[in-house]
Amino acid sequence: MIVVLKKNADAQQYGELRRWLIAQGVSIQENIGSFQTVLGLIGDTASIDSDLIEALEIVESVKRVQEPYKKANRKFHPDDSIIDVSGVKIGGGHFAVMAGPCSIECEDQIVEVAKQVKAAGANLLRGGAFKPRTSPYAYQGMREEGIDLLLKAREATGLPIVTEIMDAAHLDAFRDVDMLQVGARNMQNFELLKVLGHTDKPILLKRGLSSTIQEWLMSAEYIMAGGNENVVLCERGIRTFETATRNTLDLSAIPVLREKSHLPIIIDPSHATGVARYVKPMAYAAVAGGADGLMIEVHPNPAKAMSDGPQCLTPAKFEEVMQGVAKLRSALA
Amino acid sequence: MIVVLKKNADAQQYGELRRWLIAQGVSIQENIGSFQTVLGLIGDTASIDSDLIEALEIVESVKRVQEPYKKANRKFHPDDSIIDVSGVKIGGGHFAVMAGPCSIECEDQIVEVAKQVKAAGANLLRGGAFKPRTSPYAYQGMREEGIDLLLKAREATGLPIVTEIMDAAHLDAFRDVDMLQVGARNMQNFELLKVLGHTDKPILLKRGLSSTIQEWLMSAEYIMAGGNENVVLCERGIRTFETATRNTLDLSAIPVLREKSHLPIIIDPSHATGVARYVKPMAYAAVAGGADGLMIEVHPNPAKAMSDGPQCLTPAKFEEVMQGVAKLRSALA
Amino acid sequence: MIVVLKKNADAQQYGELRRWLIAQGVSIQENIGSFQTVLGLIGDTASIDSDLIEALEIVESVKRVQEPYKKANRKFHPDDSIIDVSGVKIGGGHFAVMAGPCSIECEDQIVEVAKQVKAAGANLLRGGAFKPRTSPYAYQGMREEGIDLLLKAREATGLPIVTEIMDAAHLDAFRDVDMLQVGARNMQNFELLKVLGHTDKPILLKRGLSSTIQEWLMSAEYIMAGGNENVVLCERGIRTFETATRNTLDLSAIPVLREKSHLPIIIDPSHATGVARYVKPMAYAAVAGGADGLMIEVHPNPAKAMSDGPQCLTPAKFEEVMQGVAKLRSALA
Amino acid sequence: MIVVLKKNADAQQYGELRRWLIAQGVSIQENIGSFQTVLGLIGDTASIDSDLIEALEIVESVKRVQEPYKKANRKFHPDDSIIDVSGVKIGGGHFAVMAGPCSIECEDQIVEVAKQVKAAGANLLRGGAFKPRTSPYAYQGMREEGIDLLLKAREATGLPIVTEIMDAAHLDAFRDVDMLQVGARNMQNFELLKVLGHTDKPILLKRGLSSTIQEWLMSAEYIMAGGNENVVLCERGIRTFETATRNTLDLSAIPVLREKSHLPIIIDPSHATGVARYVKPMAYAAVAGGADGLMIEVHPNPAKAMSDGPQCLTPAKFEEVMQGVAKLRSALA
Repeated sequence: MIVVLKKNADAQQYGELRRWLIAQGVSIQENIGSFQTVLGLIGDTASIDSDLIEALEIVESVKRVQEPYKKANRKFHPDDSIIDVSGVKIGGGHFAVMAGPCSIECEDQIVEVAKQVKAAGANLLRGGAFKPRTSPYAYQGMREEGIDLLLKAREATGLPIVTEIMDAAHLDAFRDVDMLQVGARNMQNFELLKVLGHTDKPILLKRGLSSTIQEWLMSAEYIMAGGNENVVLCERGIRTFETATRNTLDLSAIPVLREKSHLPIIIDPSHATGVARYVKPMAYAAVAGGADGLMIEVHPNPAKAMSDGPQCLTPAKFEEVMQGVAKLRSALA
Repeated sequence: MIVVLKKNADAQQYGELRRWLIAQGVSIQENIGSFQTVLGLIGDTASIDSDLIEALEIVESVKRVQEPYKKANRKFHPDDSIIDVSGVKIGGGHFAVMAGPCSIECEDQIVEVAKQVKAAGANLLRGGAFKPRTSPYAYQGMREEGIDLLLKAREATGLPIVTEIMDAAHLDAFRDVDMLQVGARNMQNFELLKVLGHTDKPILLKRGLSSTIQEWLMSAEYIMAGGNENVVLCERGIRTFETATRNTLDLSAIPVLREKSHLPIIIDPSHATGVARYVKPMAYAAVAGGADGLMIEVHPNPAKAMSDGPQCLTPAKFEEVMQGVAKLRSALA
Repeated sequence: MIVVLKKNADAQQYGELRRWLIAQGVSIQENIGSFQTVLGLIGDTASIDSDLIEALEIVESVKRVQEPYKKANRKFHPDDSIIDVSGVKIGGGHFAVMAGPCSIECEDQIVEVAKQVKAAGANLLRGGAFKPRTSPYAYQGMREEGIDLLLKAREATGLPIVTEIMDAAHLDAFRDVDMLQVGARNMQNFELLKVLGHTDKPILLKRGLSSTIQEWLMSAEYIMAGGNENVVLCERGIRTFETATRNTLDLSAIPVLREKSHLPIIIDPSHATGVARYVKPMAYAAVAGGADGLMIEVHPNPAKAMSDGPQCLTPAKFEEVMQGVAKLRSALA
Repeated sequence: MIVVLKKNADAQQYGELRRWLIAQGVSIQENIGSFQTVLGLIGDTASIDSDLIEALEIVESVKRVQEPYKKANRKFHPDDSIIDVSGVKIGGGHFAVMAGPCSIECEDQIVEVAKQVKAAGANLLRGGAFKPRTSPYAYQGMREEGIDLLLKAREATGLPIVTEIMDAAHLDAFRDVDMLQVGARNMQNFELLKVLGHTDKPILLKRGLSSTIQEWLMSAEYIMAGGNENVVLCERGIRTFETATRNTLDLSAIPVLREKSHLPIIIDPSHATGVARYVKPMAYAAVAGGADGLMIEVHPNPAKAMSDGPQCLTPAKFEEVMQGVAKLRSALA
């Protein structure tokens, strides 16, 4: 961390700052110039709040040189992490596709979709049991019962299951789930992250609607700091001024994350665009851009059921996407 | 809700849509033109997910005419709501100021600040006990112990207290707290909102970093739908591209909310700007723009303690702000 | 266009609105319901300002059903446009790569780069002569002299040239340039767009930093309305809250534009990310997502020259990108 | 400017960087630590492009300590600038209100409005002659003829006039105009800014839709660098994800600009909100927040004329706003 002091900074205040910094366990490299004084802070600065220092009257500006995350940081873990979800590997060259319906509706539906997505090449079954809805009057999902149906679909197909957890109090209901998803709206629900950090479940951590990549990695760090290093990141679109798509899919996050972190990166083109017609090109773009996997919404019969979102593919369309993905992956191999 | 069908929409699919809509309890006003067919949906459309309809192949576009919130909607509650927090009224002409430190540190600190902000004219004492921190390595607050200290400061001054709750599992620790704050990062923690909807505590609902005003009102609706209509809204800045301030304070939210809702509106210039020097002008702007109150961070000795954020005022500065606020309020009366 | 009137709208004001609408040349389809009155406006509504109608006291809301652009609209031009730039075709299956340095420095530099990018497979040579710079103290480019050097590089390689025009007053200096670029900061410089609409030069229209896709197509419409339909669109990143990349590359714009418009779409990963290391993955993503071409910054010797931006590739790296692009394109064929 | 080198930076490359920096006229303060090397660059770093340095392989990061603007910088001009527009002073305690219609329609209209806004206390008359419109099919304004009518309204009332210039080629038509407005879409039309820098006209520089405060000051610097220091800044809302208002009025820009610059700051609540009902509270907020003036749209008869925007006040409403503004200003005096 670098601290630039104002010209003619008050000596007493500077003394207090020095004592406080040393008490935090960092050492100070002082560079007194004719123009200004620059302090280089050396040691573990991750726990120092740079805003606190910037607040001081004698400080001109503060710049962090080190990233504030450690366990998620590639610097301290140069090799790609490979996360194992009940036998399915993600990351480090292992490509995974999670597919299934936005909401679980009944046993027939989820088992049928599970078979179809498996046949098309998916590795994991996703399905919404607990549903975060903007409106309290909207359908909130089948909840515990939905998880039971997912488990039946797993039994029928062998596909490990991934589904969203919205509150730490529900954890017991997820004891047989293979991978727990933390949704975009809960990316900074720190109490939930802490609890998940003390489980041994693989976690799929979605990016918050307006979270920076650094904040996202800090949320991964919350889980990892508790001891659970099985974290997979999932980009699902960020909020911008553009309204032609539901969110703006930030595919540049792939190379940025690849550089900063060793964690696997999944792309969700369904939620990002919110439009089924745009899922195929964005899935292709994600694969060519270097993603470790995809999360895609698939529903057995979108038009008839009236319960799918506009971003949902039919199994036939999904199969088409999977074939294109396979071609792209071998072109890049 | 208005649904515009595509030209030459498939008759069978249109029949299915009609049947489904009628099953949802709405009646349909059909307007078949040479150019296109426009459907007006009449009745309680709040529970109908417009995205589902827009997903259909035969649909060109959907437009909601009614707002999806009811209890928070001024249309159904024309008079301003006045929320009573242990005797302190907010809204409907009652102006309230919540002041205190970002983090509670010790009994002396919080009791001293409480006395100072009371003397300067504050009506409620705020202080952080459970602290949402971006980093797992940053100080997480005194938690339950901090609430005990807040209660001592209330005893010493008579000021009702407001503090943040981060997880429904902590609710018991807040049983003596006068007003519960839901932070920006939890604005769409729907499970927490539901639990709070079943309490009778006044709730201070902060706006999410990238939440639209409509989403914010929907989160208020979550609490109100459970039976707890004691909701106060707090604007604390939204996330934009501008980096000169920590967030962009959206003061236009005041007249928009005034028109759409009957709930009181508090402005937090401290978190919005993140800079103590900008708090006074933005507090003044909030008052002149019609806010029902302010939330301001005050710390007894920012420079010495090294624990305040850059947005924190000294008690002396806070008193100056309160005097200006009083002048502005009488000018506008 | 659909206009929803407020309940109990004043009859006289409604009469005035009707007369005004008819005077604008549209016919009105009236749908009087018990709940509300909905007007369907039929005819050429592109020149009607929906904000003006929405301003009226009797109007609840206005919704445009038709896009406000015509010549750029795929509805009225179902086939992909193919733009011919001095023999190089873009769009409708023709893939084009524009490469070259951010700033032209001297004859040797531009001729050398031109040969290198041609050898690697580029179809057009790009180079900045007139440079839009945020600071008045920054280097503003070689201007007219830079265009002369571009022409020499064209002579040496046969590659058509594309370079930015910043002011209509400079048009004469561009008379021999093959394709004129309108930069992001001038996307809504309407006077410049009008002038370009009266030329017969192919125009590369970059998206504004915070322009919606619809505004971008309206800017294309400005050029096309003047008679010049040779417009190619170029996405170069939009401004968001994320700071890890210079801008956020919006690749979803590809399928959206493909659906709404017949104009070709070029992606510029260099300016979008601002980081040379991210150019390759984003170029690949653009190709897989369906782009009609790429614009890539290439500089003969970035490290030595101290004049390239961080987003600039070496010729060797560019060649590597081109080989990957070729593989991806044949995988998708 | 501070440059942090990567650990084990290549010595030859570092030597080249040092030579280049010295050639740019800056001196280097070197701080070689065990952990990293930090360079402090001293001298006139405004013309050094920090991106170029950050691009080098040996560089970890670059931080600007000095602002890149000079003439607009309060550091080098501690007193508030007072801009004189044909006798009307703006800034340094002088409060100015610019009012008038969005579009000039005819002599009667503009003269009538001019008289009305003058009677209500406005100091300057604004009116649109050249109109930047998103659509080429929308009305583009009366152009030169509109300026003639503004001049007649000035003759009738004595109010100096301010109107928008969209292209340097039109400059001659503005020779008798008192103050030239640069619109949001042209804030980075650098060629226009340069031409205006060589005139002696006061310039009203609107903030771009997605421009940072620093970019805005750099655009002011473009004008001032040419010799014309008569620049007034006008905040008119920035583009965010919120759709309840047309733009998000960034009132925190007032204290930020007050600190960074000596130039006067005007607020335009009409364009920012896009809704007439929100103009009064936001005008009040601007005044209480410390603005040096307001720009407000006023139209003689909005409902009848069908030509005003939704953000336009009637003269009666405008008078009410002016009375409130006067009360607030005396409360703050």
